[in-house]
Amino acid sequence: MAKAEKSAITPTRADDYPEWYQQVVKASDMAEKSPVRGCMIIKPWGYALWENIVRALDDMFKATGVKNAYFPLFIPLSFLQKEADHVEGFATECAVVTHHRLEKDETGGLVPAGKLTEPLVVRPTSETIIGDAFSKWISSYRDLPMLLNQWGNVVRWEMRTRIFLRTSEFLWQEGHTVHATETEARERTRLMLDIYARFVEGHLAIPVVRGRKSPAETFPGAVETQCIEAMMQDRKALQAGTSHFLGQNFAKASGIRFQSREETEEYGWTTSWGASTRLIGGVIMTHGDDNGIVLPPRIASSHIVLLPIFRTDDEKPGVMDFTRKLADELSHIRYHERMLQVEIDDRDIGGARGWEWIKKGIPIRIEIGPRDIAADSVFFARRDKSPKEKVSLTRADFLNRVTGILDEMQKNLYDQAVRFQQEHTRIIDDKTAFYDFFTSKNSDKPEIHGGFALSRWCGSGACEAKIKADLTVTIRCIPFDATVETGPCICCGGPSTQQVVFAKAY
Amino acid sequence: MAKAEKSAITPTRADDYPEWYQQVVKASDMAEKSPVRGCMIIKPWGYALWENIVRALDDMFKATGVKNAYFPLFIPLSFLQKEADHVEGFATECAVVTHHRLEKDETGGLVPAGKLTEPLVVRPTSETIIGDAFSKWISSYRDLPMLLNQWGNVVRWEMRTRIFLRTSEFLWQEGHTVHATETEARERTRLMLDIYARFVEGHLAIPVVRGRKSPAETFPGAVETQCIEAMMQDRKALQAGTSHFLGQNFAKASGIRFQSREETEEYGWTTSWGASTRLIGGVIMTHGDDNGIVLPPRIASSHIVLLPIFRTDDEKPGVMDFTRKLADELSHIRYHERMLQVEIDDRDIGGARGWEWIKKGIPIRIEIGPRDIAADSVFFARRDKSPKEKVSLTRADFLNRVTGILDEMQKNLYDQAVRFQQEHTRIIDDKTAFYDFFTSKNSDKPEIHGGFALSRWCGSGACEAKIKADLTVTIRCIPFDATVETGPCICCGGPSTQQVVFAKAY
Repeated sequence: MAKAEKSAITPTRADDYPEWYQQVVKASDMAEKSPVRGCMIIKPWGYALWENIVRALDDMFKATGVKNAYFPLFIPLSFLQKEADHVEGFATECAVVTHHRLEKDETGGLVPAGKLTEPLVVRPTSETIIGDAFSKWISSYRDLPMLLNQWGNVVRWEMRTRIFLRTSEFLWQEGHTVHATETEARERTRLMLDIYARFVEGHLAIPVVRGRKSPAETFPGAVETQCIEAMMQDRKALQAGTSHFLGQNFAKASGIRFQSREETEEYGWTTSWGASTRLIGGVIMTHGDDNGIVLPPRIASSHIVLLPIFRTDDEKPGVMDFTRKLADELSHIRYHERMLQVEIDDRDIGGARGWEWIKKGIPIRIEIGPRDIAADSVFFARRDKSPKEKVSLTRADFLNRVTGILDEMQKNLYDQAVRFQQEHTRIIDDKTAFYDFFTSKNSDKPEIHGGFALSRWCGSGACEAKIKADLTVTIRCIPFDATVETGPCICCGGPSTQQVVFAKAY
Repeated sequence: MAKAEKSAITPTRADDYPEWYQQVVKASDMAEKSPVRGCMIIKPWGYALWENIVRALDDMFKATGVKNAYFPLFIPLSFLQKEADHVEGFATECAVVTHHRLEKDETGGLVPAGKLTEPLVVRPTSETIIGDAFSKWISSYRDLPMLLNQWGNVVRWEMRTRIFLRTSEFLWQEGHTVHATETEARERTRLMLDIYARFVEGHLAIPVVRGRKSPAETFPGAVETQCIEAMMQDRKALQAGTSHFLGQNFAKASGIRFQSREETEEYGWTTSWGASTRLIGGVIMTHGDDNGIVLPPRIASSHIVLLPIFRTDDEKPGVMDFTRKLADELSHIRYHERMLQVEIDDRDIGGARGWEWIKKGIPIRIEIGPRDIAADSVFFARRDKSPKEKVSLTRADFLNRVTGILDEMQKNLYDQAVRFQQEHTRIIDDKTAFYDFFTSKNSDKPEIHGGFALSRWCGSGACEAKIKADLTVTIRCIPFDATVETGPCICCGGPSTQQVVFAKAY
């Protein structure tokens, strides 16, 4: 986090990371707070990113046989009641619909009327309503596996919100599957986690650690929760996707039974898995710099902006002509899943224009002036380089190399993030060093702690709770390759054979 | 609606059209009622159709410069209050959120808690919340035109619901635009209506009449509502899309002002336009027959099903091998916007299998048995032909011709619907004939009336209201080419120069 000579965003990441995040979101024009408490408005530049995330993930899901469906926004209170008895950690902060009409009172003011006999909850997640449908749709092993996914909005009433990271309403997908055997359900759980990992690393250029949660961090009702954890530039962890193996717990709560090939009646084995608009927050916090956000080309809202420059009205037609021709040529080039997306910004607002696009994080900016046209060349800058670093290539050369340049940028962002993560991940076996790692001793900023600690944990909930109470540090995951030689637990000193990831987290 | 020799759906269209609709939806496995009052579950076969609709329409919107965004699900009551003062026909049947928490009472039952100071309404439409955002985002003519669209769910509390046609929650898109001039806004209104018409005719194979609504049927607050109207097989009209020119009315209510090029402060000119999951109901009611739904290939959930047939276990490997190879070859063929989508159904359930796919409306069914393999041929049936009509082509020939066959089916469905619409559309200038046209005198079924009447209307609300009261017939639209020679109004006999479309409607 070296301080840039002059930065477009105030404060810088080093000065005040949380406030930098707010400012960088604002400067990017991706989203903003709405007049509705805790809800955000996702503006076109942010929504285009989400659309690209949806399309890429959706294709990956479908390639494994998953189909999409849509279930009601509302869940009858009685459904949650069933689940509440079953699940300990049930989320109670949710939007409750109690009336179905508005009427005018004597003063002409609108008031709720038509009280519902049973209140409806706006879905915080759809386990219960989908489970109910599954119980009706599934009767034989022939109906299995059932592999469904839903893209939609959910609501969890949040008191402290941050755009993309924690909002009362957010967009997400939730996958729900039912299998005839435990093995198959466990394989599906891992398959979907691996898809998230592949997507987040490959498309979002964010390296992740894969593993499972400790019992304390496991989704209520699940047998095992698997997750991918990424490191943000303030060294905190962001959970970027989860996949739950639910055993037969939810099948029993929802009555998902089937007749097996052997004609016995069995409960189904279920999984669920989800990822949300939170991923956008992860992109911002992983790649953003002191000039704004930086979008990985594979997923960028748009790839290239053309900035025509003309000093006189005479120059304008020629410059615009060249610009439009170049835009047309570029937009016929395929870049992975889609064609290159190109913006033309011909607003007459001077230097502010280029900086706007830097703050929006578009991968490539091209300035087009009479000299470039005369030389039939393209003068461009990459968002992952310094704003001053601009390169000129002949137009033909640029067209040939543009997808390679974008791939290079994609790789550069990923490599940079891997280096950052490695630099701030330590194997720590000493308790004092562990406590030091997570306190201000490692930084001139009290909020910046060490990062990820790979330390031994004996598996006791008491040790986990003590570390959380002392340091607000939690076990982010037990990596799938966590097994090591026996050694002392970082907290109690008792025997442990696993090295887990401890970190502060979003 | 000739009765089929033997039909898969009971009742037939001729016997009981409304009940046929329910049964045909059920048999198609596209959607079903949910345990939540008035809400539907869209199952994978129905949702895939919606995804294809979304993708095609979205591409058409974007080609005209529209960008997508996302606004909150909830609307504060005060926002609607503003609008309620302004708009007469304000929709009051909506879901009202009054609490943000669930708590357990003494008996352990969940009850709403955490009462909100201001109730929130689940969006029935987003005019008010988007208008509020526009008022903050727009300050200069440089910010215009503002061309946004939102895909999402909306809720309107409905007492009598029918899947896809009228449900409390449904999926839709709502476009909202702001322009600097009246002309530009009027052009945009028509442009979007023409996109709907092009999509509904080109992709859904449903012919439509384009026009504007009478004042009584105009969207509350709009200056002009334009619509496309389609004829279903019970000869009723279905409004398949609307586009509203809102003048400056909504801009004034929401405070959408901008500084013009001439540096004066002006109100924006706005439009809005929408289409919904109702379109799926339109597809079913236009093309469905007594064997189930019939999906137009351009938009079908899937294009082709392969049905491997083997009498002995010995035959199975060879048949499955050929099947998978053919599926692979087909799925590498592009058909308009997407690659061919192919299903393999190898369930061992006998003849029921083929009929299931007929009821699902898949365009092409291919049966694959040892004899076909020996001859390297493809034995197939088209969903728009009789179930018994099957054709054999060599495999190479079929692969070459398959997209042409699908296009032919698409055209056939459209032509058939055009013929039906023409057959049941009459120019009627005589009042008695008009009343006869809309009563049982034209049919042995009292619910089947004549269809669309093209009749003169003087423009008076009283005539429109009388016809509605007498016949439950409304003016569906005033076609853009409605002007004719002066003649008597069908109701009062007064002078009229326009021929409008009268019909019963969904």
